[in-house]
Amino acid sequence: MRRFVIVGQSASASADFLLQDLPGSSGRLDVLLRCIRPALMVSHGLRRDTEVYLVLGGGPLAPRILRFLSAGARYLRPDERSFAVTAQKALASASEASEFVDVRPGVAVAKCGLAELLARFPSATLHVLKEGATDLRTRPDFGREPLFVVGDHRGFDEATLTELEVRGALPIGLGPMSVQAEDAVALVVNELDRRAEALEVPNET
Amino acid sequence: MRRFVIVGQSASASADFLLQDLPGSSGRLDVLLRCIRPALMVSHGLRRDTEVYLVLGGGPLAPRILRFLSAGARYLRPDERSFAVTAQKALASASEASEFVDVRPGVAVAKCGLAELLARFPSATLHVLKEGATDLRTRPDFGREPLFVVGDHRGFDEATLTELEVRGALPIGLGPMSVQAEDAVALVVNELDRRAEALEVPNET
Repeated sequence: MRRFVIVGQSASASADFLLQDLPGSSGRLDVLLRCIRPALMVSHGLRRDTEVYLVLGGGPLAPRILRFLSAGARYLRPDERSFAVTAQKALASASEASEFVDVRPGVAVAKCGLAELLARFPSATLHVLKEGATDLRTRPDFGREPLFVVGDHRGFDEATLTELEVRGALPIGLGPMSVQAEDAVALVVNELDRRAEALEVPNET
Repeated sequence: MRRFVIVGQSASASADFLLQDLPGSSGRLDVLLRCIRPALMVSHGLRRDTEVYLVLGGGPLAPRILRFLSAGARYLRPDERSFAVTAQKALASASEASEFVDVRPGVAVAKCGLAELLARFPSATLHVLKEGATDLRTRPDFGREPLFVVGDHRGFDEATLTELEVRGALPIGLGPMSVQAEDAVALVVNELDRRAEALEVPNET
């Protein structure tokens, strides 16, 4: 299982944003939504065994988490607006449960934050994407249950960095340039695909 | 200079599409538009020396080409809708010129197709992204003026493949999985960044 956790410091935890002005009205939820596609989708279909978590830290309903699973997902379209529509419907759910509640196949919402989320995956090998850290290409491996934490356009706040450090998250870098979050996901996924092929364990559906 | 040429077999060459249903109404112009961001943008700003060409093969006005330059571009936002709005305004221009005509800073449109476009770059080293081809990581170099041709969700049609072959385009692969066009751009850009750093020629603004 591969997991991507995208942390949005100000991304709207409510459905209260405009589809026609996502960057301006959603606390930059657009950055997080754009990470779903490279994590879950290949050229013609969905990956297997991948989960994406969007940690929403913005607005009075925060923190909440949106979960997208490749297993069970149906009718996902690759365009940003479709993901935004799906997110808006999911966030309109009034669920206050700290467990994930499905709002449609493969899409769920929970009322919790990063610490509670990470506590669910005691066997995961945590990585945090960080500018200037050890290049992911040089890492010997990413563990059997790799989990990657990605910041938004502002990076991480201090509390998140502390949380990740306490949990022993391994910092990894992606090369000389600081790329946008969704490109970071595409680069990690490609490295994992290459490693999986080297082990002759294909990940494609 | 880095150039990316994204070929859309059916992508609308006219402004006649709906912003609220881009995949369904634009001949999948959305696939092409999503390639602009990873080519032109880094975490906080625009790259230098990068050009993106969207070759639009769909509808009665085809072929037309939309050009996005990192040099001179202003007020570009990273979200898909913003690129779609920009494209729609540019395509509403009635210009029939085969030369590029600026419609706003950094964005231009021309009435021509792939062959005429490639003929403008006699010094470019052409590459075509192709599933299963030689891994880009193993290529010794990409030339001083690398140009990458990327297909849409359907790949390339026969005429395009012939055109690229005649011009000696080098096929390159990106790993074991067939990724979506925009992820392909992100992977190529990262490889170029790494090579540029190895040569101590940073590409960031």
